Parts: sequence; structure tokens; C-alpha cells
Amino acid sequence: MTPYPPSLERVIQSLVKLPGIGQKTARRLGFFLLTAEKEDVIEMAKSLEDLTKYIQFCENCHSIAEGSLCEICKDPHRDQGTICVVEEPADIFIFERTGFRGLYHVIGGVLSPLDGVGPDDLNLQDLLKRASTAKEIILAINASIEGETTTLFLTKLLADQDVTVTRLARGLPVGGNLEYVDDLTISRSLSERVKVNNG
Amino acid sequence: MTPYPPSLERVIQSLVKLPGIGQKTARRLGFFLLTAEKEDVIEMAKSLEDLTKYIQFCENCHSIAEGSLCEICKDPHRDQGTICVVEEPADIFIFERTGFRGLYHVIGGVLSPLDGVGPDDLNLQDLLKRASTAKEIILAINASIEGETTTLFLTKLLADQDVTVTRLARGLPVGGNLEYVDDLTISRSLSERVKVNNG
Repeated sequence: MTPYPPSLERVIQSLVKLPGIGQKTARRLGFFLLTAEKEDVIEMAKSLEDLTKYIQFCENCHSIAEGSLCEICKDPHRDQGTICVVEEPADIFIFERTGFRGLYHVIGGVLSPLDGVGPDDLNLQDLLKRASTAKEIILAINASIEGETTTLFLTKLLADQDVTVTRLARGLPVGGNLEYVDDLTISRSLSERVKVNNG
Repeated sequence: MTPYPPSLERVIQSLVKLPGIGQKTARRLGFFLLTAEKEDVIEMAKSLEDLTKYIQFCENCHSIAEGSLCEICKDPHRDQGTICVVEEPADIFIFERTGFRGLYHVIGGVLSPLDGVGPDDLNLQDLLKRASTAKEIILAINASIEGETTTLFLTKLLADQDVTVTRLARGLPVGGNLEYVDDLTISRSLSERVKVNNG
């Protein structure tokens, strides 16, 4: 079988490294790029190169930034006493959409002994330091098994500090139909039930 | 809502131009690239840049090439008398997988008056020239409405030439179940039925 021209093959092999993009999709994208506007392809190349140049991690919260501090940590109008602890920088933008106006702390993953991720691999040292001056730490870690373990670990880690520690509620997703919600979620929604009258 | 850092946003807006990649997927890929190996991202950028530099179109068949002629047109061992006419360069690699050993001619699309694509927009002039020295022209255009129109047009265009003109068979896909095949395909498979005995 005739191979693709080397420079096309190289693009395809690069694209295949992206998550959710297999050989077939990569080939389709490769051929698309061949006929795409040359300026668009150059711009894509340039933007990727610049990404590696300009993006760094915020010294304070470990989110992504284009300087030593991210836009959120630089903003004096945000509630400096509330710190929302998340796994990854991408999570921050999810909470930003809700109108949350506190600060964040990216721990950079979850505890996962099987993958060799222990407490030392997460950004916990400066979380402790930041917690000492905060009013509330919200643990906004994913509800996966590793995430729950990490939440538990962080709860214990922060127990000695003079700070309120909370975590996200577990329960029915809004708009969720009981019939389609898994049993564990139902069970959590039951045990974390909320009082609705004053009786 | 806090915007993404500009260089991340720029990558996302570049990725969104790819077919089948929406805002959400582009964002996911963008965040993936942030944490990907720096060398991989640089290599992706470089490969895209090189693609625009090195890929050109074959002077003979209009397929993609890294010189003035593509690998297939350069190969003297291929059947020089059989030319398979396809819409796009990507189609060539589909036929290559079948073991076809003739040459190709990429017309660069199909006739589509609604999109303003007329005969002058396709690579037909040199197809006529090549047809004059060929034994067989195989019209391997997609079986879409525009494709069928184009096949018909090419058949008429080549009618005066001393060359056998064939087109791909229409019929049941191999492994296809009658129940799931559309009526038009059934109807074509019936009208193009093939004799299997000598009676």
C-alpha cells in the first residue's frame, strides 16, 4: 500500500496523540488540513508553539497563567477567604460559570496508589499554608473513587487548621429522573437529605 | 466568567476550525495540550508548519505530493494504461488498500451548480489529455447525487476518445443485509445484476 507523503503522515501521527482521536479521525483531519486555508494551518501551528511558550502555572493556586500569577489570584475583588480546591485547571472554568467569586487551588490530580500518585505528588504544601489564612476551604474534587479518597485525605489533613472545610453536595443531578440515577447516588442523596421546613 | 488565558483561547479557536470538533471538544483538547509533553506539542506545531511548506499537488494527477510528481505517478511499475478518476486525494488511499495498481486522476470535487462548482473548476483538461493515451478510465466518483451527475458528465466528455470508460459497480455492500439496504441501492443492484452461469 502506498504510504502517505511523509509530512502528512507526521501530522497524522501528531494528531493521533490527542485524546479521543484515533487513526481514522486523524487521517480525516490530516486531509482536511491539506485543503484548509494555509493561513489557518500556520495560525494553528503558531498558536500551539506559543502555548508552550507562554502558559505557565500560577505560583499561588497552580492554575494556568500567562505570568507568575493567574487572573483570578491577581483580582483583589474576589473573596480572598474562600478557596475552592479542584483537581485540574480546567475544573476552575466550570465553577466560574456558576458565578463563584472566591479563589481556587489546583492540587493537580487525585491520590491513586495504583498509578503511583501519593500526597507528595499533589500541590498540598501550599494549600496548607493558604488554608491558615482562609475562612473556608471547599473540596470540589470529582466524585470518583480516587476523588472521594482524596477528599477524605484532605479533610483529615485540614482538620487541625482553624478553617471551615466543606465539600460539594452529592445527590440527584438537577433535572435528573430517579429512574435513571444510579443506586449509590440515590443512597447519597438520601443520607445527605436537606431539611425544607422549620418543623 | 473568567476567560481562558489568551494563548489557550487561541489554540481552542484554531482547533474549532477542524471538522467534527466543536467548542467543547476543542476546550478539552486545549487543556490536554496544556499538560501534554512540551516536545509533543512543539512537534505537532512543527509538523503542521511543514505540511504547508512541503505538500504540493502532483502535476500529473493532482494528488498530494512532496515534489512535482507524486509517488504513484513516479512509479514505472504501475499500469500506465489504467486511470482511476477520483474526487479527492484521500480517495486514492482507499483504492490503494484494495491492491489496485493503475494510476489515478484527482478531479478535485464534483459538479455542484448550487455551490458554484462547474466543469472549469475541476481538473478535467489534463484528464482529457491523459485519456488520449490510456486504455481504460475508471470513474470512481462517490455515489452521491452530485457524484452521479459528475460521472454522467465525464462519461459524455470522454465519449469521443478511444478509451474504455467504466464506473464503479453499484449494489449491495459486501456483508450487507437486504433488510438494511436502502431501496435505491436495491434497485441499482437489480438493474446491474451479474450473470453467474453460462446458461
